[in-house]
Amino acid sequence: MNLPLGYLYSATYAGIRQVEKDDLALIVSGLPANAAAVFTENRVQAAPVRLCRRLLKLSRGLAGAILVNAGNANCATRTGDKVALAVCREAARRLRLRVTEVLPASTGVIGVELDGTKIVDALPRLIDGLRPDRFDDVARAIMTTDLAPKTAHAAIRLRRGMVRVAGMTKGSGMIHPRMATTLGFVLTDAVISVAQLRGMLQRSVERSYHRLSVDGDTSTNDSVVLLANGAGGVRPDHSELPRVEEAVARVMESLARAIARDGEGARKLITIDISGARTHEDAARLARAIANSPLVKTAVAGSDPNWGRILSAAGNAGVAFDPSRADIHMQGIAVCRGGLAAPFSEVELKGKLDAHECEIRLRLRGKGRGAARFWTCDLTEGYIRINASYRT
Amino acid sequence: MNLPLGYLYSATYAGIRQVEKDDLALIVSGLPANAAAVFTENRVQAAPVRLCRRLLKLSRGLAGAILVNAGNANCATRTGDKVALAVCREAARRLRLRVTEVLPASTGVIGVELDGTKIVDALPRLIDGLRPDRFDDVARAIMTTDLAPKTAHAAIRLRRGMVRVAGMTKGSGMIHPRMATTLGFVLTDAVISVAQLRGMLQRSVERSYHRLSVDGDTSTNDSVVLLANGAGGVRPDHSELPRVEEAVARVMESLARAIARDGEGARKLITIDISGARTHEDAARLARAIANSPLVKTAVAGSDPNWGRILSAAGNAGVAFDPSRADIHMQGIAVCRGGLAAPFSEVELKGKLDAHECEIRLRLRGKGRGAARFWTCDLTEGYIRINASYRT
Repeated sequence: MNLPLGYLYSATYAGIRQVEKDDLALIVSGLPANAAAVFTENRVQAAPVRLCRRLLKLSRGLAGAILVNAGNANCATRTGDKVALAVCREAARRLRLRVTEVLPASTGVIGVELDGTKIVDALPRLIDGLRPDRFDDVARAIMTTDLAPKTAHAAIRLRRGMVRVAGMTKGSGMIHPRMATTLGFVLTDAVISVAQLRGMLQRSVERSYHRLSVDGDTSTNDSVVLLANGAGGVRPDHSELPRVEEAVARVMESLARAIARDGEGARKLITIDISGARTHEDAARLARAIANSPLVKTAVAGSDPNWGRILSAAGNAGVAFDPSRADIHMQGIAVCRGGLAAPFSEVELKGKLDAHECEIRLRLRGKGRGAARFWTCDLTEGYIRINASYRT
Repeated sequence: MNLPLGYLYSATYAGIRQVEKDDLALIVSGLPANAAAVFTENRVQAAPVRLCRRLLKLSRGLAGAILVNAGNANCATRTGDKVALAVCREAARRLRLRVTEVLPASTGVIGVELDGTKIVDALPRLIDGLRPDRFDDVARAIMTTDLAPKTAHAAIRLRRGMVRVAGMTKGSGMIHPRMATTLGFVLTDAVISVAQLRGMLQRSVERSYHRLSVDGDTSTNDSVVLLANGAGGVRPDHSELPRVEEAVARVMESLARAIARDGEGARKLITIDISGARTHEDAARLARAIANSPLVKTAVAGSDPNWGRILSAAGNAGVAFDPSRADIHMQGIAVCRGGLAAPFSEVELKGKLDAHECEIRLRLRGKGRGAARFWTCDLTEGYIRINASYRT
């Protein structure tokens, strides 16, 4: 693992969660980092989301630290704005940063007041614990119903030297593609301007977090932050920037896949591939409709090659297409040709569908070149169990 | 029970289902009936849906019978169009009706060829069995994963005499509000013109089937047909038509509620009431977003008063509103005021949420008069069990 240079990490238990498990984490950049972020499009936005957006505007995209807590979303809370600002201010003071340089994020239950004193009290030991090798501790501390921490890494060699990218994310429910989804922190040690970083993040989110759905819900706290601190000393030249962007996008795709794989109650990662649509936008809409169909997701859970549900879900996408020119493959086996049943061995395919990964391919035979890839997971009893009693 | 005059009903087992349970049903009107229908908006439409639409156009809204089978949707089938037409033609011949007067409908599995000879062979005994009192037999024959038949009745006294309305419906999954949902047949013995009937049906569907969601999916076969055969001899005058429409709409609301109550795996009927939105359309969108949220539906399943999920789901509706002016009630108890937690007894509310009906009220304090009522059900492990192995 080749972590980006110039970042320190720490995590501790501040008493926000009811179980004793790290719930407060800090990422600090030794050098001022350029920053870009995307946030939830939910009308109801948590206090840290609103504050983070404001701070980034005030600082014009300069950041020194990310302070994140799990166990409480600090959303729909009376004291939310005050608490979010107070903890950022205290962290900034102790880290000798400007307040605008400490970006806040929270995840957890909605509508319960967040006790800021717990965070303030924990800050000294949190800062004490900062180390360059505690990346994974932060990834673990931000987990809620996640079963596994989610990280991804990349390193590329440019003309002037190495550039490293590392990302972590959390989330397994309330995941929906309309926007930046869940919490995601992606760090690089390349020298990249704020403007370049923003474009890079937008396009990378488009092909990663925006192509991901677990349950069609969207949280009030979703934030994805990309930092570039330049600590590696390598400034990609114009011709190299696409390669850096590709590395960032791949890290984010890997994080998005990890979320789908760890979807609440999921046993299977489902990858949906659309081709032959009129436009990429149409392809994405078709993929999304299939990914959001509970009937498709339960069929995959039961290893049932019920392609009729896939075709029907596509029919609900609000996209014009000719069903009689639609081919569907599951696990590489043709199950539907031209909108009709293709001959296949049910026993063989059922066996293949027991795998941990399921691939659904919808090809529209036409002149269109629109294509999209999308990730989701199967829908199992586990999702219900987790969500029927999350608060209690 | 006061059935509309002039209708005959029959049902039989034609061997389409694998289990021996009536799967073929017939509704016949002694007099030619005026007819209106709404159909699924899915791009993928079953053969009987396409044929029914065509027949109604050709006949200009005149119908003599409805022929419906369960166990096979006759959708995405090679021989679908031919089979649908052939069985209508044979039924018409035996009933001495024009082909255009026999309206077809099918429900069941997608992508499996429907054997028309089974239906043709069963027609003699189906027609033999026609009786004025077998309404409930038809309601039972059209069930698929339904646990209970779904019927509703109304009778109103007009100046010139009684008008009767009776409806039946089926469906418990693949229910979504974007369109006429599932199969629904509503009959009246009033004298009503085709044009009046169409308006009546559109508006009634708007406040019943379009306000209903079980799993956000939409079938390829959804059809709701309204027949008026005039057998009661009562022609409502202009001032009485709204009362007849109200009776039709109430029958359809009752059918829609019955579908939500019988949603696949559901233990609870959820009624969502929105008020104070800018427009009725905004209110309906807010209600729909809450009704479609798996997180809200699983919380209700677990009797968990997790109002944060309700607020967050509303925030995803794509409707502009001020969360700090939002009040939420569950089972009549205030759980959120002005976007913040209201004080309530968790134990008491949890007890109330164990009831078979759950009421969620979202009030936006503002000048808006937009209101909407919407029905859905809780999401339980049962939904998964039913749908993970429907075909097998």
